[in-house]
Amino acid sequence: MKEKVLHEDRLFSADPTVKGIAKELYSIVKDLPIISPHGHTNPSWYAKNDFFSDPATLFIKADHYIFRMLYSQGISLNKLGIPSCDGTPAETDNRKIWKLFAENYYLFAGTPSRMWLNHVFINVFGLTELLTKDNADLFYDTIQSKLTTEEFRPRALFERFNIEAIATTETPLADLAYHKEINKLNWNRKVITTFRPDNVIDPELPDFAKDIAKLGEITNKDTQDYDQYLLALRERRAYFKEHGGATATDHGHPNVITLEIEKAEAVELYNKALLGELQELEASIFRGHMLMQMAEMSLEDGLVMQLHPGVVRNHNHVIYKQFGANKGGDIPEACEFTRSLQPLLNKYGNNPNFELIVFTVDEDSYTRELAPLAGHYPSMKLGPAWWFNDSPEGMRRFREATTETAGFYNTVGFNDDTRAFFSIPARHDVARRVDCNFLAQYVAEHRITQDEAAKIIVDLTYNLPKKAYRL
Amino acid sequence: MKEKVLHEDRLFSADPTVKGIAKELYSIVKDLPIISPHGHTNPSWYAKNDFFSDPATLFIKADHYIFRMLYSQGISLNKLGIPSCDGTPAETDNRKIWKLFAENYYLFAGTPSRMWLNHVFINVFGLTELLTKDNADLFYDTIQSKLTTEEFRPRALFERFNIEAIATTETPLADLAYHKEINKLNWNRKVITTFRPDNVIDPELPDFAKDIAKLGEITNKDTQDYDQYLLALRERRAYFKEHGGATATDHGHPNVITLEIEKAEAVELYNKALLGELQELEASIFRGHMLMQMAEMSLEDGLVMQLHPGVVRNHNHVIYKQFGANKGGDIPEACEFTRSLQPLLNKYGNNPNFELIVFTVDEDSYTRELAPLAGHYPSMKLGPAWWFNDSPEGMRRFREATTETAGFYNTVGFNDDTRAFFSIPARHDVARRVDCNFLAQYVAEHRITQDEAAKIIVDLTYNLPKKAYRL
Amino acid sequence: MKEKVLHEDRLFSADPTVKGIAKELYSIVKDLPIISPHGHTNPSWYAKNDFFSDPATLFIKADHYIFRMLYSQGISLNKLGIPSCDGTPAETDNRKIWKLFAENYYLFAGTPSRMWLNHVFINVFGLTELLTKDNADLFYDTIQSKLTTEEFRPRALFERFNIEAIATTETPLADLAYHKEINKLNWNRKVITTFRPDNVIDPELPDFAKDIAKLGEITNKDTQDYDQYLLALRERRAYFKEHGGATATDHGHPNVITLEIEKAEAVELYNKALLGELQELEASIFRGHMLMQMAEMSLEDGLVMQLHPGVVRNHNHVIYKQFGANKGGDIPEACEFTRSLQPLLNKYGNNPNFELIVFTVDEDSYTRELAPLAGHYPSMKLGPAWWFNDSPEGMRRFREATTETAGFYNTVGFNDDTRAFFSIPARHDVARRVDCNFLAQYVAEHRITQDEAAKIIVDLTYNLPKKAYRL
Repeated sequence: MKEKVLHEDRLFSADPTVKGIAKELYSIVKDLPIISPHGHTNPSWYAKNDFFSDPATLFIKADHYIFRMLYSQGISLNKLGIPSCDGTPAETDNRKIWKLFAENYYLFAGTPSRMWLNHVFINVFGLTELLTKDNADLFYDTIQSKLTTEEFRPRALFERFNIEAIATTETPLADLAYHKEINKLNWNRKVITTFRPDNVIDPELPDFAKDIAKLGEITNKDTQDYDQYLLALRERRAYFKEHGGATATDHGHPNVITLEIEKAEAVELYNKALLGELQELEASIFRGHMLMQMAEMSLEDGLVMQLHPGVVRNHNHVIYKQFGANKGGDIPEACEFTRSLQPLLNKYGNNPNFELIVFTVDEDSYTRELAPLAGHYPSMKLGPAWWFNDSPEGMRRFREATTETAGFYNTVGFNDDTRAFFSIPARHDVARRVDCNFLAQYVAEHRITQDEAAKIIVDLTYNLPKKAYRL
Repeated sequence: MKEKVLHEDRLFSADPTVKGIAKELYSIVKDLPIISPHGHTNPSWYAKNDFFSDPATLFIKADHYIFRMLYSQGISLNKLGIPSCDGTPAETDNRKIWKLFAENYYLFAGTPSRMWLNHVFINVFGLTELLTKDNADLFYDTIQSKLTTEEFRPRALFERFNIEAIATTETPLADLAYHKEINKLNWNRKVITTFRPDNVIDPELPDFAKDIAKLGEITNKDTQDYDQYLLALRERRAYFKEHGGATATDHGHPNVITLEIEKAEAVELYNKALLGELQELEASIFRGHMLMQMAEMSLEDGLVMQLHPGVVRNHNHVIYKQFGANKGGDIPEACEFTRSLQPLLNKYGNNPNFELIVFTVDEDSYTRELAPLAGHYPSMKLGPAWWFNDSPEGMRRFREATTETAGFYNTVGFNDDTRAFFSIPARHDVARRVDCNFLAQYVAEHRITQDEAAKIIVDLTYNLPKKAYRL
Repeated sequence: MKEKVLHEDRLFSADPTVKGIAKELYSIVKDLPIISPHGHTNPSWYAKNDFFSDPATLFIKADHYIFRMLYSQGISLNKLGIPSCDGTPAETDNRKIWKLFAENYYLFAGTPSRMWLNHVFINVFGLTELLTKDNADLFYDTIQSKLTTEEFRPRALFERFNIEAIATTETPLADLAYHKEINKLNWNRKVITTFRPDNVIDPELPDFAKDIAKLGEITNKDTQDYDQYLLALRERRAYFKEHGGATATDHGHPNVITLEIEKAEAVELYNKALLGELQELEASIFRGHMLMQMAEMSLEDGLVMQLHPGVVRNHNHVIYKQFGANKGGDIPEACEFTRSLQPLLNKYGNNPNFELIVFTVDEDSYTRELAPLAGHYPSMKLGPAWWFNDSPEGMRRFREATTETAGFYNTVGFNDDTRAFFSIPARHDVARRVDCNFLAQYVAEHRITQDEAAKIIVDLTYNLPKKAYRL
């Protein structure tokens, strides 16, 4: 008998007792609506409701998880259809790109990407075999033809995926035109924005000064002046709440440093930043100061604050120069939280009206720093296993490392954090399965009762994300 | 059928083979006497043998594991009956505090605190249901009434808990009056002290100079003089051995630094320390130097040396200022052992008469630093999974990470490290179960034989702690 | 019924489903030839084909895994027959040494050393009991008598062990005489060398200047001159390829630093290095620069580059002074890869003709740094779990931490990295079993199909090491 590519018991323990409990827990949550409070899909999809493009663009060229692995095995990005800035011609034959991918699909064995894609191929497109070079054409043709049917328009899929609410991410410069359009639709689904001000807060980003100037234009403020700059930020936050339904901000800082400095020093750093004259340490200090300002504003306006630190962006300068950002070359580094968050948590962390959700790609900090901090400060919650750790093993390690010190209720449920729209149900399904299996093991080992587990799994899946993100 | 809150097979694998072996191993050790060589119970309890107070004081107000979690979910410490230094009134209705706790007991699902408390409620008080707001009064009344019976006096419980020996912890300024009283009792149980000199060794502690002065008074030495200070420490160590039965010292340093400096430098640092004029780095150097002195004295007097490093005490200044120390706001940070312990281990670590037991809350160091060090230096042993890692997952990770490099015999068995007297049997029971299950898995996977496992589990439970702590 | 010391199902999960799949996978690879592309056996063994010595020399005195554990429990190295430099007499009665070891064999319970030794005793010598003090003589006599039979000569064992290819490790000063002799044999097995230039690249090694001088003599170059030094290295690499069949280099640096410096700076550092005048940081810079040079040469000559960083060698100065290097006193420390490898990977890492295999004893870097790097850069592959982590738990953690981000195909299969010739089949067997069990769990949890697992296990066991090491 042929093995199923997408078995109904996948990710559940082989142990019959644990598996049995996991399946019972899963039956409770598998059909709950998806709450997706942190992600990167394009709001224009839902506003315009145009057909998606071809399979290669959708699943390869747009997914850095996919092409980074292929690249790591010596396949050039040009061959995968990704255009160079320098004009080197990229492959334009999407079917050829798809076949190259299919031939190399075995490379993804054991990765979450493969699990998500299998889920999409089977559950969304009805393709039940494992993708190989032999069936590559069949896959291509099937996907291509379905993509141009009404049921595969973005809003139809949104409903079919059972998404209740999704958050996108925009910079303070965004006009939120698509969000406004969506709001005008007579549509019972929620698409909200998230305020992500890195480009006007991090002086080390290439367009910092230019974007500060734009921020001034948009808000009609002289953002060359520090006070006006803060006012402009406050105004955009209000705008994001009003026109984009924002309930959260997000901050993707290189490190976790937070600190209080005198106003005069802040002004001086800001002025140097606008001139592009900050040293590396000064830039860190300025960002750390601005995180404090963001916390202050969150207390005022109620936006939940998210921190995603510790990634060296564009580590591979060769690829960055030739292909631009987000090409699979972002690499994590060690992150310190205990000392770095102390100023912010001391100033704001005891206020239950303020909420800070912290993520990490440095798992070492789970038991040593993050769970102890979240298990004490009322304001701090733990974001789910992030990025490279958004995977079955990563999620398991997250629960094993954080639950005993921070409990389940200082975590915020799952985030898909993705721009890959089709994979959203697959990602949430993986998270639900892994949490069910984790809880099932605790039940089987008599650490909690099954009644408790049944309550906790609903909270992890649905209630905690809604509560944490104030949805 | 209702699930048991405290199942007899809890913490054993769901796999029937592993579980079967684990149960056999557990049957060997479950009734062995408790050796508790490192803890923080109050010797006055055993000396005076007074009744314990009410349930809220016993299980909530006195347990920072409990109130830190409640605080993290927005419940103020005042509401939990913890008095502020600033005079803000704290709740005094113990039953009300108890009910608030009961309502929020679900927050502890998956934490060791809940497992310990369930054990206490059921095995000590006969309360077999899971605590909820509905049965909160029943729990309160039952506990309250039992606490005033003869069988619930400290020494009766000590015997019922099958404790053979327990160590408390005192500063060098302690007169050990209660230990002396206990020694005069005709009682076949052992209550000994541990020499914990942080307050007179760490110049960054607030009362350093004052306590050094007191040390001088007690010992009739001029402790303004460095040599006399060392003499005073030697004298107190001897006093702790003679009057408190001490077999060990304990050192709770912020970092692991040890180093040799010239006498002249030590004198200079000491003089500055007394004046409160040390910089942060100088304070580290002085502590590192004093660890070397402590090792030297341990070689002379045979006291086993314990090191508990790497915790940022009172991380939350707001809570510290309002409620004082030990209010759940201590947070670990990364710890370096390889370079930091090198001076001490090079000087004393090859001498089998010297014994250093090292703990960590930084699990990263298990495979990278601690197990390799303990698997080489004759003097060094690994303390059990500590504090936030004193938990089923934490203990499992400890064995998985250390056994292959350091074996079982470079570890020292379990420490409960607690001031929560009632939880001691629960804590030792958890440790025994986790070790049984770990060994059972090794037996089931044919890594060791069951005969070996049966010997090892007795050593881990009883023989190794007695040997390591020279009891 | 007596338990088997070496059960046929050892290291497979107790779960019957997982175990069943693991056994099927294992049956595919258990008899595949051994590829041992990184090791430290002595080529003279295969060239001269002399009998091995006695059991104590073979299994105790020569194995630092063994004597470090015995030493950690207070047994002096002299008692184990290891000679001091200072003339303290070492035990010379090999049978007495053997018995001391046998008495303490219980210390190794749970360690890989014990699993390897049990494998050797049973599968190589037919001794099916667990070694104890009671059967120590039987073991000694049996081993001793077999060691002097024809079937126990090195080349006979090499064949019996089913080794297809083995790599040894030599410094650039080696004449490779034994490799040349082996090449002249009419023998269908491969013994190749590896170019390990630490002694002429690391200015902090004690014989650096002396060895540079020797390098000059051998190559007839004036190695006082930096350009000639580089030429000499190029020449020796070519020599290693031609006369030793080398396909790889290996670099055992204290840290991972790589960086580009101006030629003038390199010359200046080199000149100071020859005079022994480099500061610690300068030595790091010089080594980092030389790693870049080695990468450059690898691109020219096709030698695969291996990096084994992060170990503090001879941590125990007392033992080092008395007994020399490699006496169990090497201790890992934390390693940074993301920033440190960036210069090298940016310059060479996008070139698929260059190959860098990275190892670590700092497991924290697996998910945070190494898997993300290997999952992106075409040149970078992950070496297997190394040294203290070359163990069942270590290998399991390696796969759990790296697979989801880097896949299986950015890893290179198993290295035994050993000088303990007899243990080679045991070590490869452990690795095969652990990988089979890991894959079996993934199959049982429906993460991959069994067909895929069957292909992957052959790749991990045989194809990937051959491909990665260009054998």
